[in-house]
Amino acid sequence: MPERCGRYTVTLSNRPSIISYAAVAGKKEGQGPLGRCFDAVFEDARLGCKTWEQAESALQREAMTRALDKVGLSPSQLQYLFSGDLLNQNIASTFGLRQMQVPLIGQFGACSTMGQTMAMAAIFVDSGAADLCGALTSSHFCTAERQFRYPLEYGGQRAPTSQWTATASGAVVVGRGQGVSIRAVCIGRVQDLGVTDMNNMGAAMAPAAADTLAHFFSDTGTGPEDYDCIATGDLGEVGSALNRDLLSRKGYTLDDRYVDCGLLLFDRQTQDVHAGGSGCGCSASVLCAYFLPRLERGELKNLLFVPTGALMSPTSSQQGESIPGIAHALLLSAEK
Amino acid sequence: MPERCGRYTVTLSNRPSIISYAAVAGKKEGQGPLGRCFDAVFEDARLGCKTWEQAESALQREAMTRALDKVGLSPSQLQYLFSGDLLNQNIASTFGLRQMQVPLIGQFGACSTMGQTMAMAAIFVDSGAADLCGALTSSHFCTAERQFRYPLEYGGQRAPTSQWTATASGAVVVGRGQGVSIRAVCIGRVQDLGVTDMNNMGAAMAPAAADTLAHFFSDTGTGPEDYDCIATGDLGEVGSALNRDLLSRKGYTLDDRYVDCGLLLFDRQTQDVHAGGSGCGCSASVLCAYFLPRLERGELKNLLFVPTGALMSPTSSQQGESIPGIAHALLLSAEK
Repeated sequence: MPERCGRYTVTLSNRPSIISYAAVAGKKEGQGPLGRCFDAVFEDARLGCKTWEQAESALQREAMTRALDKVGLSPSQLQYLFSGDLLNQNIASTFGLRQMQVPLIGQFGACSTMGQTMAMAAIFVDSGAADLCGALTSSHFCTAERQFRYPLEYGGQRAPTSQWTATASGAVVVGRGQGVSIRAVCIGRVQDLGVTDMNNMGAAMAPAAADTLAHFFSDTGTGPEDYDCIATGDLGEVGSALNRDLLSRKGYTLDDRYVDCGLLLFDRQTQDVHAGGSGCGCSASVLCAYFLPRLERGELKNLLFVPTGALMSPTSSQQGESIPGIAHALLLSAEK
Repeated sequence: MPERCGRYTVTLSNRPSIISYAAVAGKKEGQGPLGRCFDAVFEDARLGCKTWEQAESALQREAMTRALDKVGLSPSQLQYLFSGDLLNQNIASTFGLRQMQVPLIGQFGACSTMGQTMAMAAIFVDSGAADLCGALTSSHFCTAERQFRYPLEYGGQRAPTSQWTATASGAVVVGRGQGVSIRAVCIGRVQDLGVTDMNNMGAAMAPAAADTLAHFFSDTGTGPEDYDCIATGDLGEVGSALNRDLLSRKGYTLDDRYVDCGLLLFDRQTQDVHAGGSGCGCSASVLCAYFLPRLERGELKNLLFVPTGALMSPTSSQQGESIPGIAHALLLSAEK
């Protein structure tokens, strides 16, 4: 049963677990440090579709289908799909998943979406509202660039603080069987310290990551040292240094157990991604390709997974608004 | 506790209730048949803000604040806010609610969003994941027109099947006290019968409403005659006739207990709204201005509230995609 623990955290005593998962990615991600960890790498940015948006939908379908196939489930055995993405009106999710004919609960948390979909799935399963749920998200470099920045053909210059939107999807099946368990979730508040630079999302999101982590530590009476690994979503080089600093001022030293999914997905020395990876698919695919296998193999006993999102739109930025950030924390445990 | 009932429905045995609610609207809505029922009507489409998007954010803030004020609550007493809207990247919600500093779980269900946010809030409260949640949504004629259709200055012609996006917001506080209870929720599947006409959303959404209602009747062993009123979201004149017809083919006669929020909000004879009202704020404000007071006064014993959404974007339509619909049903009951 879900139970409140402090002001911001919910613990899940029935231990809903990730009974299956899959991650798929594009060519550039496949050439990165985690290239061999993905369930599939697509050399064609269009995945054989007519448009990039359809290709992003295909990424979600591929990830969810592969996660289900691994445990011999069909979509009709899921009670709910929780999904969201960066595209206007969540079209990657809707069009990617409509043929599965599973009740769909669209989520929006920008790049924090994987944390949000998994939190919803875990609370639904823990409470008895569902037995089996899918949770997933995606991003695609080409759909994000043209929607948020410039037409790809324009070849806009990128700032040193810019991040590279991952072409990837990660999907999990949450149920009550064997697998990494979801022990607690901590939903974040919107944090906005007034950053307006659309090329520095890491700085805009770092205060949210620090806020959520501090709440989680305080609510649970724990500290960074109680976790084998703490992984933020996609703060990149700039944002993860800020997060480290902000938490240190609150009295929490993250140390070398702290990593950022945006710094794991690409090799910044050779892959020209500037401050690191980003996009909903970044933390989702790093979780499903890298962390969940490590938890299953016992290389990590537990993980604090903290995806981060920047909740702006081009319209809000054009209207002079600052960039609000959000972050959600999930405690994943390998212990049965 | 949430308990599964059939394939698609969840019953809520702790009877989470709507302990407060409020609805605010724009000038045109204020001149309509429900004009006197709103908590506030704003003559200025900008609500004193610089942009329409900021005005839509202000609508959400006004609705939620008024709902909280009525029962003497402050935002800090809410554990979660569930909100979403039609704007790209949900900015009406994020920017409208960021100052409340309540953990925010962004939802996207297009015009079905009020059903989705209330379903999430009800399941969270019923399960113990939360004690008090806010659920709300909004739409604004001016933000929707320019984002989905044409610049307002262009003065585009409207088709007879077109609907008029409501400038409105509805907000509820879900908790465990006195109030209309939420007895069951039925989350819908995406239904897509291939409608591609962006000026006929009612037709695109009707199959989803019929699908969800048929599931709910079948799961609960009930029929239309067991409910005092069945209200779909914003199918308008065209879509509600289709919904009636589709359900009749499945053996369910809706009769005169069936109404559509899109047909209640405006006077179609005098207000030039063509097929009726639409937008997330349409069903949300009709629920909070008209139905919840009727339930409280005992004029209705129960209500099946079925908001409907069209999950397209201008990009998906430009790429030749059809318009997927979705609908969620909630059983609201006046009985303690």
